[in-house]
Amino acid sequence: MNNIIESLDNQKIKEVRLLHKKKYRINLRKYFIEGKRIVDEAILHGAKIERIIISSSYSWDKEYLDTISGSKLKNVELLTVTEKVFRSIAKTESPQGIIAVVHKEERSLEKTLNKLPREPFIITLENIQDPGNMGTIIRTAEAARADLIIITKNSTDPYGEKALRSSMGAIFMIPIVEVIGMEWIPLFKKHAIRLIATDLSARKSFVELDYSGGINLIIGNEGHGISKELLSLADEKTVIPIYGNIESLNASIASGILIYKAREKRK
Amino acid sequence: MNNIIESLDNQKIKEVRLLHKKKYRINLRKYFIEGKRIVDEAILHGAKIERIIISSSYSWDKEYLDTISGSKLKNVELLTVTEKVFRSIAKTESPQGIIAVVHKEERSLEKTLNKLPREPFIITLENIQDPGNMGTIIRTAEAARADLIIITKNSTDPYGEKALRSSMGAIFMIPIVEVIGMEWIPLFKKHAIRLIATDLSARKSFVELDYSGGINLIIGNEGHGISKELLSLADEKTVIPIYGNIESLNASIASGILIYKAREKRK
Repeated sequence: MNNIIESLDNQKIKEVRLLHKKKYRINLRKYFIEGKRIVDEAILHGAKIERIIISSSYSWDKEYLDTISGSKLKNVELLTVTEKVFRSIAKTESPQGIIAVVHKEERSLEKTLNKLPREPFIITLENIQDPGNMGTIIRTAEAARADLIIITKNSTDPYGEKALRSSMGAIFMIPIVEVIGMEWIPLFKKHAIRLIATDLSARKSFVELDYSGGINLIIGNEGHGISKELLSLADEKTVIPIYGNIESLNASIASGILIYKAREKRK
Repeated sequence: MNNIIESLDNQKIKEVRLLHKKKYRINLRKYFIEGKRIVDEAILHGAKIERIIISSSYSWDKEYLDTISGSKLKNVELLTVTEKVFRSIAKTESPQGIIAVVHKEERSLEKTLNKLPREPFIITLENIQDPGNMGTIIRTAEAARADLIIITKNSTDPYGEKALRSSMGAIFMIPIVEVIGMEWIPLFKKHAIRLIATDLSARKSFVELDYSGGINLIIGNEGHGISKELLSLADEKTVIPIYGNIESLNASIASGILIYKAREKRK
């Protein structure tokens, strides 16, 4: 085993603590993940891992450490730290002694669209605020094998701890592009991808909709739905009917129902 | 305004604090709800409210207080307490100065089944552990106008604070019966209600299933799915296919997809 880092002031350790904040995740274009399961998912799905940090108070399998260290996985630095140092960077209560720092994949929407299948299945999250919903929708999108997720800038950070946890590793499997404003809309017109918006006042039920061809399902904010601006640009509006006395469905449930309906009809 | 309760040791105030714990909610057959919106929902939907407690530091509309006090709503006691006393019983950070103590509706499954429509749409939650999932599934069931929810004893408490909040008031709208063991199964056979279980190893996709007649959709535990015992008693097994690299769907998402498919096909 390498030298064990004992100082809370080590620069690489301090960086992980900075990554607890969204601001630094944006500036440094990195995030961190905690726990063996999600680190393993990141390795398996080729995430750009910069460094893996393990606590010296756990017993680690030699072969596992070989796999995650430089010998088998290129360019990944393996650091061992004391349990005290580890606790200072962990955000969850039982991170099983392992944390990884990962580079965000910075993708241009135009280039990404050009690489997708001819008639892609895209999901856009506009201003989703709850990290649990964010992660769950990413997980559902991957389960339905959508091709791309677009996230508007005013949404909660998909690379925050709770969103990552709720995504169950899907964040490493499905491409994600973050966009600002509405500058991305013309690209969809150019690629003949229809924008489909859910709207409680729409007349057409989601079961009657045509989901064939290139589509982009837009999921709106938990409280306010899709913004007026984006709604006015949608090619189709649809509603998931509410039959009971409740006002609305939870945002991630509505997304799940719509995403699986699209997948069912596209087959 | 009545006398203002200033003592943290007042018996009725101590009782609310006890209701923070599941054990006392079970023993006393009561629970408490916080915030104006959910209290209003409880009043509107005829929940058995025992008492409403308001903080004296909020300004209350006279007509609203008349509505929720004995003059218009029978048998409801209205208590005013100091903000300090109020803080001692509130569980959320901004409960808007209002809390209500509500009696649980204790229902027998047999009597409840006899009162339902001839071919009911029932949802059973077996060993659901996450309060957010619990509340969200109840909300979705009401949105799809299911007739009844059955909850097995080893599940998280649907009357806990987070489950109540996630249910968005649906807990007052759809009947809920809590059951122990498997003694309830023969009743379904007697009423010709089919037990439909989701199972990742089932062959039949949920889109091909027949949802007509009396049905009971069983939703299993987040990590382990439906118990072997219950699975062996199911009349039909079905799967929501996973097309991507993820292992499974979130339990409340899977429930939402299945519940809305059943509603779509039953229409």
